[in-house]
Amino acid sequence: MIKEIVNALEHYLSTLENSRLKDATEYALLAGGKRIRPLLMLQVIEHYKLNPLNYVDAAISLELLHTYSLVHDDLPAMDDDTLRRGKPTLHIAFGEGLAILVGDGLLTDSFKQITNHPLLTDTQKIKMIDVLSSKTGSKGMVYGQVLDLASEKQSISIELLDQMYLFKTAYLLQASLMFGAIASNQIETLNLWEKLGYHLGIYFQIQDDILEHTSSPEVLGKSKTDDIREKPTYVSLIGLAESHKTLNYHEHQIEHYIHELNIEHSTITQSINEIKKRKA
Amino acid sequence: MIKEIVNALEHYLSTLENSRLKDATEYALLAGGKRIRPLLMLQVIEHYKLNPLNYVDAAISLELLHTYSLVHDDLPAMDDDTLRRGKPTLHIAFGEGLAILVGDGLLTDSFKQITNHPLLTDTQKIKMIDVLSSKTGSKGMVYGQVLDLASEKQSISIELLDQMYLFKTAYLLQASLMFGAIASNQIETLNLWEKLGYHLGIYFQIQDDILEHTSSPEVLGKSKTDDIREKPTYVSLIGLAESHKTLNYHEHQIEHYIHELNIEHSTITQSINEIKKRKA
Repeated sequence: MIKEIVNALEHYLSTLENSRLKDATEYALLAGGKRIRPLLMLQVIEHYKLNPLNYVDAAISLELLHTYSLVHDDLPAMDDDTLRRGKPTLHIAFGEGLAILVGDGLLTDSFKQITNHPLLTDTQKIKMIDVLSSKTGSKGMVYGQVLDLASEKQSISIELLDQMYLFKTAYLLQASLMFGAIASNQIETLNLWEKLGYHLGIYFQIQDDILEHTSSPEVLGKSKTDDIREKPTYVSLIGLAESHKTLNYHEHQIEHYIHELNIEHSTITQSINEIKKRKA
Repeated sequence: MIKEIVNALEHYLSTLENSRLKDATEYALLAGGKRIRPLLMLQVIEHYKLNPLNYVDAAISLELLHTYSLVHDDLPAMDDDTLRRGKPTLHIAFGEGLAILVGDGLLTDSFKQITNHPLLTDTQKIKMIDVLSSKTGSKGMVYGQVLDLASEKQSISIELLDQMYLFKTAYLLQASLMFGAIASNQIETLNLWEKLGYHLGIYFQIQDDILEHTSSPEVLGKSKTDDIREKPTYVSLIGLAESHKTLNYHEHQIEHYIHELNIEHSTITQSINEIKKRKA
C-alpha cells in the first residue's frame, strides 16, 4: 500500500504551481519514511472490509500533517536539526523562510485533502477534521512541542515527559487509527482505537529514546548529538533498565487492545510488529 | 459587534492550558486590530436576516487564521519586522520558536473553531473548511507569501504584484464574505461575494502601498523602513499617480458588486467605507 500512498503524494504535488515552494514541498514529502500514519488508517479500513485504495487521498492528509511537524520541529529556533533521514533538513537545503512556509502549506492542505474526498460523507469529513485539529492544535501536538522546547536543558519529571510524548507523537497516531474507524463507520470502536494509539505512541517514543542511546548515527540517519545533547529522554531520566520495563508495560497494553479490537490477524498488527522490531 | 468578537477570542484563549503558549497566543490575538474579517462574515449574515451573534465563534476562525499569517510573516526569516500595531512583534517579545508554534496552533485551531459550531450543518462546515483551506494553503495565501519572499530586492512586474496581493490579502477577504454567504445558505451568491472580496483585497493593498509612502511611522504603528526598504510596491513600480488610478478602478468595481448584491444600505458597505477612509 506504500506505493499507492507515494503515488497519491506525487499527485498532490503535481497540483502545485511550479515554484520553489513546490520543489521544497516535494523535497520534504518524498524524502522516504515509513508512511506509518496513512498506512495505519488504510489498514483499519481494510480490516473493516472496505477497499482501502478508495481512501488513499484522505489518508495522505495524515502524512502532510506529519511532514509539516517534522519540517517545523527541525528549524533553528526549535530543535535546530541539520540532518533528517540522512539528508540535509529542509531549512538547510531551501532556507528557513521557505521551510516555515512549506510547513504552513502542508498543514493547511491536510484539511483540504479531507474536504476534497469523493466518497466520505460530510459528517465523516467533519468528524475527521474535528479529530485532526483537536489532536494537533494548541491543545494537542503544538502544545507538546511547546513543552518540548521549554524542557531543553531542564530536569523534568517522567510524568511531564510522558505528557510530551502523548501530545507530540501519540495524538497523531490516535488520529490515524480513528480516521480508519470513522471512514469505516465504526464510531462505536473509536475509544478502543484511541487507546491503542495512545500506547503505540508512547511505546514508539520510549523505543526512540532507547535506540538513540544504543544505535550509531549512521543507522539512525541523523546527527546523534542533535537530539541527545540537550533534551531529557526516558533513558536520561530513569535509566535503560527502567525504560525497558515501561516499554514492556506499553507492549502489553498494545496486545490487550489488539485483542479487544480482534485484529490479531490484520495488517495493522503486522505494521505494529514491524515498529516493534525497528532498529532506527 | 467588535465587542462580541473580542469576547469570543477571550473565550477561545480561556480554553488553552496556562502556559507560555497561551500567553503568547493572547499577546498576538488581543493586540487590537479592526477584526475586519470576522466582522465582514457577521455583517453578511446580518444582511441575510439571521442573527450574527449566533455565528461569532465560527467567525473568529478567520481572525485566528489572519493572526497566524501576521505572526509568521513578521518572523526574521520572512519580513523580519520588529513592530506591529506599535508593539514589539511576537518573536521579539516571546522568541522565535514560540512565535512559530503560536502560528501553527492558531492555524490548526481555526479549523477546529468551525467543526465545533452548534448551528452550522456538516455540509455548511465542510464548504467553509474547503474555502478556507483552498484560499490559504499552498495554492493560496502561503503561495502568495512565497512570491513575496522571492520578490525581495527584485524588480517584478505589476502583474506579479497583483497576483501576490490576490493570494496574500484578497483570498482571505473572499473567504470571509463567502463564510457569511455559506452560513446564510446563499450559495448562489458565492460568486459575487468572491468578486467583491477580490477587488476589496487589491484595493486594500494598493491603499497600503500609498499610505506607506505618505504617512509617518507613528501613524502606521510600525517601523516604516521594515516593509518599504526591500519590497516592490504599487508606488515603487508605477508611481503615485498611476497607483491612484488603479485604486479608483477597484473602487468602481467594489461599487458595482455592492450594487449587484444589493447591499448599499448594509453594515458591510459601512465597513468597506471605513476601510476606504483609513489613514493607517
